[in-house]
Amino acid sequence: MSIKLSELAQKINCRLQGEDCLIDNVADINHAGDGDLVFISNVHYKDALSSTNASAVICKEEWLDGCSLSALLTDDPRLAFAKAATLLNPVVNEDQGVHPTAVIANDADVDASAILDANVVVKAGARIGAKVYIGAGTIIGENVSVGEGSYLNANVTIYPDCIIGNNSILHSGVIIGADGFGFVRDKDTYFKVPQLGRVRIGNDVEIGANTTIDRGALIDTVIGDGVKLDNQIQVGHNVEIGDHTVISACSCIGGTARIGKFCLIGGNVGVRDNIEITDNVMITARTFVTASISKSGSYSSSTPIDDTANWRKNAARFKQLDEMSRRLRKLEKKLSSVNDD
Amino acid sequence: MSIKLSELAQKINCRLQGEDCLIDNVADINHAGDGDLVFISNVHYKDALSSTNASAVICKEEWLDGCSLSALLTDDPRLAFAKAATLLNPVVNEDQGVHPTAVIANDADVDASAILDANVVVKAGARIGAKVYIGAGTIIGENVSVGEGSYLNANVTIYPDCIIGNNSILHSGVIIGADGFGFVRDKDTYFKVPQLGRVRIGNDVEIGANTTIDRGALIDTVIGDGVKLDNQIQVGHNVEIGDHTVISACSCIGGTARIGKFCLIGGNVGVRDNIEITDNVMITARTFVTASISKSGSYSSSTPIDDTANWRKNAARFKQLDEMSRRLRKLEKKLSSVNDD
Amino acid sequence: MSIKLSELAQKINCRLQGEDCLIDNVADINHAGDGDLVFISNVHYKDALSSTNASAVICKEEWLDGCSLSALLTDDPRLAFAKAATLLNPVVNEDQGVHPTAVIANDADVDASAILDANVVVKAGARIGAKVYIGAGTIIGENVSVGEGSYLNANVTIYPDCIIGNNSILHSGVIIGADGFGFVRDKDTYFKVPQLGRVRIGNDVEIGANTTIDRGALIDTVIGDGVKLDNQIQVGHNVEIGDHTVISACSCIGGTARIGKFCLIGGNVGVRDNIEITDNVMITARTFVTASISKSGSYSSSTPIDDTANWRKNAARFKQLDEMSRRLRKLEKKLSSVNDD
Repeated sequence: MSIKLSELAQKINCRLQGEDCLIDNVADINHAGDGDLVFISNVHYKDALSSTNASAVICKEEWLDGCSLSALLTDDPRLAFAKAATLLNPVVNEDQGVHPTAVIANDADVDASAILDANVVVKAGARIGAKVYIGAGTIIGENVSVGEGSYLNANVTIYPDCIIGNNSILHSGVIIGADGFGFVRDKDTYFKVPQLGRVRIGNDVEIGANTTIDRGALIDTVIGDGVKLDNQIQVGHNVEIGDHTVISACSCIGGTARIGKFCLIGGNVGVRDNIEITDNVMITARTFVTASISKSGSYSSSTPIDDTANWRKNAARFKQLDEMSRRLRKLEKKLSSVNDD
Repeated sequence: MSIKLSELAQKINCRLQGEDCLIDNVADINHAGDGDLVFISNVHYKDALSSTNASAVICKEEWLDGCSLSALLTDDPRLAFAKAATLLNPVVNEDQGVHPTAVIANDADVDASAILDANVVVKAGARIGAKVYIGAGTIIGENVSVGEGSYLNANVTIYPDCIIGNNSILHSGVIIGADGFGFVRDKDTYFKVPQLGRVRIGNDVEIGANTTIDRGALIDTVIGDGVKLDNQIQVGHNVEIGDHTVISACSCIGGTARIGKFCLIGGNVGVRDNIEITDNVMITARTFVTASISKSGSYSSSTPIDDTANWRKNAARFKQLDEMSRRLRKLEKKLSSVNDD
Repeated sequence: MSIKLSELAQKINCRLQGEDCLIDNVADINHAGDGDLVFISNVHYKDALSSTNASAVICKEEWLDGCSLSALLTDDPRLAFAKAATLLNPVVNEDQGVHPTAVIANDADVDASAILDANVVVKAGARIGAKVYIGAGTIIGENVSVGEGSYLNANVTIYPDCIIGNNSILHSGVIIGADGFGFVRDKDTYFKVPQLGRVRIGNDVEIGANTTIDRGALIDTVIGDGVKLDNQIQVGHNVEIGDHTVISACSCIGGTARIGKFCLIGGNVGVRDNIEITDNVMITARTFVTASISKSGSYSSSTPIDDTANWRKNAARFKQLDEMSRRLRKLEKKLSSVNDD
């Protein structure tokens, strides 16, 4: 698919500078060729403009700096580029309708415009909305509802009664609605606490590969609108994640945690059970959130990397920190009495 | 399903106080309505008793404190509630027998009372016990044995020769018996060490979504009776986990580790290869177990959360800890000589 | 399968000492019986030689120490044993050809020697090489290429356009080519950045259960030849992992990270986005790599385990480290002035 640069400028709300040309696709600035549109997100990359073979660039006007490359000017090159990339790469699915190997319960309600690929299983009472795509091998449990326009990749599993909103994307290996982790000690065994809540996922949510979201125990686990979860995230039962919060890969959200809106949570973060985090909180990668956060801002834990020999010496001292602090206090007292002499 | 409160009292071994009534289900105390049974697990929640719309509560007698709500009295409200919830919510499977799309090897031995859902694959030599449930898309490898009453959710994968005991629950995405991670350097490549052991899982085990348990190299990986594993846990080859040990989400158990009975291991814990942990050990969330533990008790590592600016200053000092300790010692010596003057 | 010890010696390039005998299989030294071949990898285990019931042992000559057990002598017992184990346990697949339930697109190119098990799905344009094995329920996306001799276990998912080299092994639950995690803030929502690159996996790679490797945004994510990835590893978009690098379970490699050749990365390691790590770097388990590493060597972070009561006291001091350092400096100044008096 090709488009004139001038036409693209209009569609993504940029100002064209330089010659018009035909754009075939987007590309990385160092690998681009004729017909490619590239971008720079930062003035530091501006030197690449003189060496790229791209046909045009998206950038801020002040970064062009005399470069004669055709350009689409905007204050937010990253966003404009994402929009151009989306326009030039429409999601195409060659699958159509319901594959003959799909197993659909008689009383499931599958919209005529939905696409269900090979070996999809839709259980009794499930509702599949308009223009939904369901990839091969995906299992939709009893009474699950998948909203209009949502896109479930291959090999996803949705447990009974869960709700997926509209225009949400679930990647392969995602498990929605498995039992939360609840047991009560009963003499010398553990008794399983039935997990009776559901998972409710909002609109415009994206959930990465192999991420797991447990159903609630008595209430529902709730993922707000616009939430973006990366791969291999674990979300415990009863958790509530506010609208437009973004969580990076391998983070682990403990049961009954409540996370606000517009939070940015880095990779490999842990959030302890029952924690509350207010809106607009940033948690840097690898942090363990051990206490509730009621003030928006940036929070961190973890220790810095070092070469192993040095690290070993310093880490050993970690176990003496309290003692060191006491000795320091003692010295201060002593020295103050020395000075007082 | 409805039951008289008095009848429920008998079944779960509580003492009824107040008026009898009909109970339809359990609920969260803040969301309960007519016909709902709730519980409080802690005296701190006792104020909720006056505002709840529930029909009855499970609690300790002393927490009732004049409240006229119908009550089931017990010393362990959490356990009694779990039992009531289980009674009121029996696991019902509308699937019956073997789905026509299931692919069963000729010489597999599937009990007539087992339920196998759509697209289940059972390979040669496998044995599926009485009243086993196997969800859609689950793959049972060659010679695998699944014991009576076990419940495998959709999209589980069991590699050949592994053994699942009775009444165990495996959640979706669980992988049992993939090769352990074993390689030997052979000049400029790595040579794969064949993983010839199995995974043996006991009775009454529960394994959370996307958890992986590797087969042993020469001996078996063994999961004891009553073990509860949360989601996204990794268990390396040759590991042994003792009966009734409970491990929370995202923990990573290194190869050949041996963990005792009745341990409680928090979320995101790492256990290094070859570690031994005795019985009745508690490991708090996010700890990295770098040495064997031969004494029961509670163990921890990790660092506390702080706002990022403070954390950055303190974390930088971590790399000076050994030097700080030496300087402290020097000061102590100096000061003792000053004092001696 | 049985083989004469003398014949095995030749095949794995060891020197036979003692009587020849028939070997049926390999075993763990403590569980071995008649016909078993065992090994010791370390002089510390040499005492086990006198008590084992094995028929023969692989070890270094100097460890035999008068023991009359038949022995295969070599300088690298671990490697010789791995080779013997491989010879004695050839991978056998009783599946043959394409299972009737497999769903193969008309224009997919499946080699006649490939084995595709039940419910495999191969989408349009995919190419499956000679002697490839694809386990039940595995989904091969559009235009994917799987090279000769590769072995994909059950329930693997490969997104469109990805490339798997020759003789590579993918374990169950692996997801190759899901979208990288890329969003741009657009007023009060996030706009998805299309992920247009692929994943390219080299030859002789092994990828553990439930590991996820995201496709690149504009360029490809690249996994070099001979790379070994354990279970539940996350590899972000645009990452490049050099040939023969080995990464243990549950590690999380951030987007656009570049890792060199022959690195050894422990379990539960995190690598921040955009980090570069040179060749021959070792990262110990549980380390968080927060800065690029340009010099080969061993690197670490994390804190040591302690009993919880002590740990709590020391961890609290972590938040005072910078203050402690300043107080220490002050004391040093004071004391130097005292001494100067």
